Amino acid sequence: MMTDPFTGGDDKLHEECGVFGVWGHKDASALTALGLHALQHRGQEAAGIVSFDGAHFYAHRALGLVDQAFGSGEVIAMLKGHCAIGHNRYATTGGTLVRNIQPLYADLSFGGFALAHNGNLTNAHTIRQELVKNGSLFQSTSDTEVIVHLMALSKAKGVTERLIEALRRVKGAYSLVAAHDNSLIGVRDPFGIRPLVLGKLGDAHILASETCALDIIGADFVRDIKAGEMVVIGTNGIESSFPFGQDGKANPSRFCVFEYIYFARPDSFMENRSVYEMRKKIGAELAREAPVTADLVVPVPDSGVPSAIGFAEASGIPFELGIIRNHYVGRTFIEPTDQIRHLGVKMKHNANKAFIAGKRVVLVDDSLVRGTTSRKIVDMVRQAGAKEVHMRISSPPTAHSCFYGIDTPSTEELLAHKMSVGEIGKYIGVDSMAYVSIDGLYRAMGEIKRDPALPQFCDACFTGQYAVELTDHDNLKTGTRVSNLHERKAKG
Amino acid sequence: MMTDPFTGGDDKLHEECGVFGVWGHKDASALTALGLHALQHRGQEAAGIVSFDGAHFYAHRALGLVDQAFGSGEVIAMLKGHCAIGHNRYATTGGTLVRNIQPLYADLSFGGFALAHNGNLTNAHTIRQELVKNGSLFQSTSDTEVIVHLMALSKAKGVTERLIEALRRVKGAYSLVAAHDNSLIGVRDPFGIRPLVLGKLGDAHILASETCALDIIGADFVRDIKAGEMVVIGTNGIESSFPFGQDGKANPSRFCVFEYIYFARPDSFMENRSVYEMRKKIGAELAREAPVTADLVVPVPDSGVPSAIGFAEASGIPFELGIIRNHYVGRTFIEPTDQIRHLGVKMKHNANKAFIAGKRVVLVDDSLVRGTTSRKIVDMVRQAGAKEVHMRISSPPTAHSCFYGIDTPSTEELLAHKMSVGEIGKYIGVDSMAYVSIDGLYRAMGEIKRDPALPQFCDACFTGQYAVELTDHDNLKTGTRVSNLHERKAKG
Amino acid sequence: MMTDPFTGGDDKLHEECGVFGVWGHKDASALTALGLHALQHRGQEAAGIVSFDGAHFYAHRALGLVDQAFGSGEVIAMLKGHCAIGHNRYATTGGTLVRNIQPLYADLSFGGFALAHNGNLTNAHTIRQELVKNGSLFQSTSDTEVIVHLMALSKAKGVTERLIEALRRVKGAYSLVAAHDNSLIGVRDPFGIRPLVLGKLGDAHILASETCALDIIGADFVRDIKAGEMVVIGTNGIESSFPFGQDGKANPSRFCVFEYIYFARPDSFMENRSVYEMRKKIGAELAREAPVTADLVVPVPDSGVPSAIGFAEASGIPFELGIIRNHYVGRTFIEPTDQIRHLGVKMKHNANKAFIAGKRVVLVDDSLVRGTTSRKIVDMVRQAGAKEVHMRISSPPTAHSCFYGIDTPSTEELLAHKMSVGEIGKYIGVDSMAYVSIDGLYRAMGEIKRDPALPQFCDACFTGQYAVELTDHDNLKTGTRVSNLHERKAKG
Amino acid sequence: MMTDPFTGGDDKLHEECGVFGVWGHKDASALTALGLHALQHRGQEAAGIVSFDGAHFYAHRALGLVDQAFGSGEVIAMLKGHCAIGHNRYATTGGTLVRNIQPLYADLSFGGFALAHNGNLTNAHTIRQELVKNGSLFQSTSDTEVIVHLMALSKAKGVTERLIEALRRVKGAYSLVAAHDNSLIGVRDPFGIRPLVLGKLGDAHILASETCALDIIGADFVRDIKAGEMVVIGTNGIESSFPFGQDGKANPSRFCVFEYIYFARPDSFMENRSVYEMRKKIGAELAREAPVTADLVVPVPDSGVPSAIGFAEASGIPFELGIIRNHYVGRTFIEPTDQIRHLGVKMKHNANKAFIAGKRVVLVDDSLVRGTTSRKIVDMVRQAGAKEVHMRISSPPTAHSCFYGIDTPSTEELLAHKMSVGEIGKYIGVDSMAYVSIDGLYRAMGEIKRDPALPQFCDACFTGQYAVELTDHDNLKTGTRVSNLHERKAKG
Repeated sequence: MMTDPFTGGDDKLHEECGVFGVWGHKDASALTALGLHALQHRGQEAAGIVSFDGAHFYAHRALGLVDQAFGSGEVIAMLKGHCAIGHNRYATTGGTLVRNIQPLYADLSFGGFALAHNGNLTNAHTIRQELVKNGSLFQSTSDTEVIVHLMALSKAKGVTERLIEALRRVKGAYSLVAAHDNSLIGVRDPFGIRPLVLGKLGDAHILASETCALDIIGADFVRDIKAGEMVVIGTNGIESSFPFGQDGKANPSRFCVFEYIYFARPDSFMENRSVYEMRKKIGAELAREAPVTADLVVPVPDSGVPSAIGFAEASGIPFELGIIRNHYVGRTFIEPTDQIRHLGVKMKHNANKAFIAGKRVVLVDDSLVRGTTSRKIVDMVRQAGAKEVHMRISSPPTAHSCFYGIDTPSTEELLAHKMSVGEIGKYIGVDSMAYVSIDGLYRAMGEIKRDPALPQFCDACFTGQYAVELTDHDNLKTGTRVSNLHERKAKG
Repeated sequence: MMTDPFTGGDDKLHEECGVFGVWGHKDASALTALGLHALQHRGQEAAGIVSFDGAHFYAHRALGLVDQAFGSGEVIAMLKGHCAIGHNRYATTGGTLVRNIQPLYADLSFGGFALAHNGNLTNAHTIRQELVKNGSLFQSTSDTEVIVHLMALSKAKGVTERLIEALRRVKGAYSLVAAHDNSLIGVRDPFGIRPLVLGKLGDAHILASETCALDIIGADFVRDIKAGEMVVIGTNGIESSFPFGQDGKANPSRFCVFEYIYFARPDSFMENRSVYEMRKKIGAELAREAPVTADLVVPVPDSGVPSAIGFAEASGIPFELGIIRNHYVGRTFIEPTDQIRHLGVKMKHNANKAFIAGKRVVLVDDSLVRGTTSRKIVDMVRQAGAKEVHMRISSPPTAHSCFYGIDTPSTEELLAHKMSVGEIGKYIGVDSMAYVSIDGLYRAMGEIKRDPALPQFCDACFTGQYAVELTDHDNLKTGTRVSNLHERKAKG
Repeated sequence: MMTDPFTGGDDKLHEECGVFGVWGHKDASALTALGLHALQHRGQEAAGIVSFDGAHFYAHRALGLVDQAFGSGEVIAMLKGHCAIGHNRYATTGGTLVRNIQPLYADLSFGGFALAHNGNLTNAHTIRQELVKNGSLFQSTSDTEVIVHLMALSKAKGVTERLIEALRRVKGAYSLVAAHDNSLIGVRDPFGIRPLVLGKLGDAHILASETCALDIIGADFVRDIKAGEMVVIGTNGIESSFPFGQDGKANPSRFCVFEYIYFARPDSFMENRSVYEMRKKIGAELAREAPVTADLVVPVPDSGVPSAIGFAEASGIPFELGIIRNHYVGRTFIEPTDQIRHLGVKMKHNANKAFIAGKRVVLVDDSLVRGTTSRKIVDMVRQAGAKEVHMRISSPPTAHSCFYGIDTPSTEELLAHKMSVGEIGKYIGVDSMAYVSIDGLYRAMGEIKRDPALPQFCDACFTGQYAVELTDHDNLKTGTRVSNLHERKAKG
Repeated sequence: MMTDPFTGGDDKLHEECGVFGVWGHKDASALTALGLHALQHRGQEAAGIVSFDGAHFYAHRALGLVDQAFGSGEVIAMLKGHCAIGHNRYATTGGTLVRNIQPLYADLSFGGFALAHNGNLTNAHTIRQELVKNGSLFQSTSDTEVIVHLMALSKAKGVTERLIEALRRVKGAYSLVAAHDNSLIGVRDPFGIRPLVLGKLGDAHILASETCALDIIGADFVRDIKAGEMVVIGTNGIESSFPFGQDGKANPSRFCVFEYIYFARPDSFMENRSVYEMRKKIGAELAREAPVTADLVVPVPDSGVPSAIGFAEASGIPFELGIIRNHYVGRTFIEPTDQIRHLGVKMKHNANKAFIAGKRVVLVDDSLVRGTTSRKIVDMVRQAGAKEVHMRISSPPTAHSCFYGIDTPSTEELLAHKMSVGEIGKYIGVDSMAYVSIDGLYRAMGEIKRDPALPQFCDACFTGQYAVELTDHDNLKTGTRVSNLHERKAKG
């Protein structure tokens, strides 16, 4: 997930967060650190843990990877208590500010409250302006803080009631984990856009963005939290409710299909589907929809591997690691001189010439955003002697921005927004180019086809059909700042 | 001001803050960094600057000395604008948290607002509890944030009016510098307990805790801000008002006399008095009040030097640097083994044996808090061969805690609270012991005597007569926490 | 290549070094940094570059990855000149000392001389003792320094002659790159145990441990340096000679076969063989030698992938990523409490349950040293529901230590030294266990069979038949120290 | 001793090193760290300690202050043994290289040997060239390494004999502390130019550059090591010899008189004279030689204080701290813009206006090298309103470079080399200017006058009469490099 200075980024969309929570284990913060480690792919810029020991809350938040921030026994020892929640954060435009690192913590009139959020609220800005007008002081530039202010101002009695009242005001995608005096709370927004699962480790309860975070600590998977569900975990066990629907029941889910395509770890299960299996099935679907006569199926590493295996199995064309990735690529390297840039330095990838030369190659990648990296990879494969290069993408064209917690470039930068598939193929220099169709994607997911009236998944980035209304985006002029302050960016 | 692990601290009271502000200079943040550097003795744990360029605010706050945090051109370049305010902070009990570093900044409904505070509010806790109850979220544990919340909730129209409304609610000692859209504001509390001066550098206006911060940038001293005065500096020049008094006039001042004794830099002028000269005069007064037949007057370095010179001149006894200080003593050093501790290691001071041996020595120090360092110094001077050792202290006995912005030990730890002067002399091991009298101190300041009805200075630490009521202290049980959160202490 | 605190290391042998050199390019040091980056897998503890601009030498050596040490333009700018040599180092027992980081540099009577070495000398200790007796002062504990001292004491006229004289005294494995006034020198030991290749980038000449370091800068591969060959590259082009053989010709090579099995990068070519292809062929050979009826072939990531693909293709059993690796595993993490350790935390690997459950699984790994990691992986796969687990290793049993530049545990720690194949299978808990045979390995390499009289490869770690005599090992008692000094280990 | 970026350095000559050694104490390395701390003024760039426990040597060397490098108990615990030697280093031109930090350590044929050196050899370069020619490899660019190479090549039997043989070859100033198997050795060069004292702490023996390093650990001063004396301290106590003189006796000493003027700490005794007392006596001598009618005597802080006190006492003019120094001035600060530089920013010093205005001021400083700082100080005092400013310098004009271990600018940069005293006075802008005379200086030292035939002190920097011949300086062209290598400067 590192940026390659020679190619200008890894050309992927990025998940913005991972969340984790534990109730009822004496090593709650250590388990949370491990859980965040397993969720590291969901956010690499910063991490935080807040724990609770029945009397006090304990917090540590830091820039960098989980290992760096929470690797020392001393830090974990300071985070006392049987309850802990944690958060991984991916930096979005505007810089990484320490005060933006989650979990948020607030001293409310009824006691301490800590909150971690995966997703994005689509009317946070609008509410924030109103709150500031009435005298609320915001400490972060994060949309999540709106929830805590609404709770602080609520006249409801209990914490849960205040949280429900606050969430009824906000719109968007949210999978939340929260901790206060006598409970650990998990909530998924009414459409269930972002993931959240429930696990068990002995008598302890776990909440996590993905099942791989249960696996790392040997916890059992219990079930997915449902769309619109709130679970309150305390000494009396788990209480479930659906406070946002009209009838107190679960909504039909609109889970983010891109989690299957790229964001989630291949060993995770989401909504009862194996991510790895879904990727293979998309690859197989792609092989059927866009067959090609070729000698080799080569994944663009590392994310293209499962769909390439699926494509190879379905097509009968041999699978080969035709592109080798250097796993030591760090965040920064020599700012190249013009002459060196001209060499077309291959910091991150190298073609496996022995297998490429003279062959017809099918490249399989999961998605294509700006196309810059793909151009370089195609060129590298051609220089290694490939006779033909065919690109197959295991998602439909990414033509619309996401407003539900994914870091997407502006629509103008999305290649699929401004070019047809054929033009994209020419732009990146391949002999043939194909994406999986939207219905092919739904078939891979086990559906017969996409239901245009009520799509089974959130696929707005492909179709432009947004599950939740985009209040801020519609109301506000571009560039309206949340804060008037430019803080010096912390060193990461 | 460093802590000596072998003696257990420098046994002094400590000023908690220095403030600085500039309006109307293109190098505002560089000047502020220099000003904070000159005020470094008022706070060494953290420093911050917020600047304003007419459109945006820019902030940097960091642990450590001003040089470390603001020494790079890159940091200063980021702090754009013609207006800047800065703050030095001395860490008090409870740890140094980045979120407590000032200036505070808030996005209020009318725009950005930045505030730096020297002093301490005596009813902040009481107000805070009420604000939290009504839905305010506090980000720091600092008392200063109360002012900003009161402003956010004010229904007054202008910024100045909101600030006045807020300040009318709070009690205590405060010298404030604030910046917002169209002005730089300076305020001194109704008793003028902490210092604040006005300066001029070409067309630019300067506010600073001490005149030495004007000198470093070559600015001219204009005048002290008066007790209870607010100055609003903008494009129309300076507007002065007295919004807290009954009649819009300045109150009689109760300026902190300890600024003259120890806190301020000797080259500063405060309320038209030279600090260095006041120290010499106290020394002279002490020589008259408590004369002694001796061979040498030796200052306890470095703060005892001016009063020792004054004592020597008045008594005719020669002044000598009989104790040499090692200026390289850092914050940490080898944790001594028992055997090494037993050696009585002299990390910081060494007796100048050539001059001490066989002599009758008068040691002059400015104050004595716990007495631990004094004991060691007296012992060191005796080991160097002194025939007699007499201690003279250029302040009255420190017997009461300060609640107006000075870091004081609890009353129980103050030596003068539990011992008579004679007992103190025995405890530290001298042949004679004397403090200047309270009237002697006032005489040195140019007064005939202390006016018990309306003392000319705040001298509560000596007399227990507090200028402003101690609401929090009186209302609250000890140990009531402002926040329920224990955050990991930042590394300094 | 990171150490997993929960499994006790990655249970692999490790290459100790990578070398790189450039002659005749104005960006010599930038190219060297890039080359070292591509060779990062050959040594992650430290890196160094020495450059030469015709008048002076310039050096920078630092602990850590190449990116960290050489990522800034400022460092590269300081390393001036048209010639540069570089070195990656893997820390061996005894700690990482800055003075041991290569390239070595010495001011000899004829001028400066810089040297980088991949390999290990087997009589360095014996020669060193003799040199110290005669007055030589050693600055490092590295065996390489012996070569420079022998050169310093040589009475031969030219640098090349002195180097030849020195190398005739030493025994062992060495691929050297050296720089002095008027040439870049490359040497491979008489048996050609460690790799060294020659490349060309425009008019510039390149020397590198592997071809992947040519690829990264877009240089063309020219040829392997031959066993016993010395190339001297200067303004007159390349001069080749064979100064160590009896007849000035190349020796029959005994190239390290483990480079193909694990050390080298899969995209490199060595002695005209594709490393990736060799790995696939060993996998295929293994499938023929040790067939098994199963549902899935699963590589132990990442190094087992190519041989698993070969095994899958030859056996017709589907290839699946049944074990997912977390690429964020850092060097340190929470020191686990007993309770957490008991959980069997999976920091680095997770089973892909969707594909494992109920299946007969063939695990393919490249080698097995102590067996600790393998046990945990087998256990993890079983817990994920595998019906059967079969282990196939794409190398013969590793039963002997290497003395030619590979970091091997002592013989006692090698599992294959103390157990039969069947016992190993029981120990790690599999249903069946097989290694490729030594002749199978040779067949994969394209040989008919191993020639026991004059083996075509160095395979001492499998056979115990050492190519070069082990003078130090035979002469010296274990534990004889090279230096009497314990230096504080530098922080990496 | 920090550099002020606004004034261009502190305009002083600098001692290059301090040395310390302990024999026979279980806390040898902790005592050494404390001793080095007391000697910090003799070198702030780097520090090192080598200890010996009877079997092994242990070393740690690092850039920065002693507190930073040796402040942790962990470092001290690693430096085991009853014997330790230490070294403080002041960086000279050419950068601070880690490999140059002392003590040097070498594995010689008879065992380990560690050496720390205060001083400078005047024929090191000449010997080094000869050694390199014969095959010696140098690891540092320090002159001290020559001694160790000469020992390595010596055919003498014992360590002491080898050291004597080596020292008979070298010329220059050296106070050495060395450690090997069965002894701690101290040596002072035949002229005793640099200081070295012997102390006792219980049964342990101490060697140190100054007595203040004995005081810090409570050790007793025994005596100065004599000119040309070698002491060998071992289990049999102390053996003293004079191996360099013709007759085995001490030479007449030529101790560096500048140690009294500026280098040494005022609380140290050197050759039975109190440094503080000598400074006062020079001040008194100066008052007699160059009297002036004035209102105040003001020291240039901090080094001018003792001579100013002496001047004040002798002249009867009151002593005042008319210039206040900011002790927080760090190594770096804002690179000033032209406009800010123009302000004449006073980072380090400020005039005490209350006492200066309208007064005739005598400034007393210990020495004047380039005059840059003096100009600024005179200007600052005039701006503070002084009616007259008179400069008195408590040393004769510094007109010649030192080659005996002091960091001196080139002769061309010395103000006194190119200007008369009157011209210097005009240049720095004073009303009158005077230096103490060379005979006045000798009188202050207790001599009747300087003996031109055999001066009682080394005063070459004033007189140009060098005690030891300057072989390298006479033989070699300027700019001959010791090494052909430019190593990247370590970060300090």
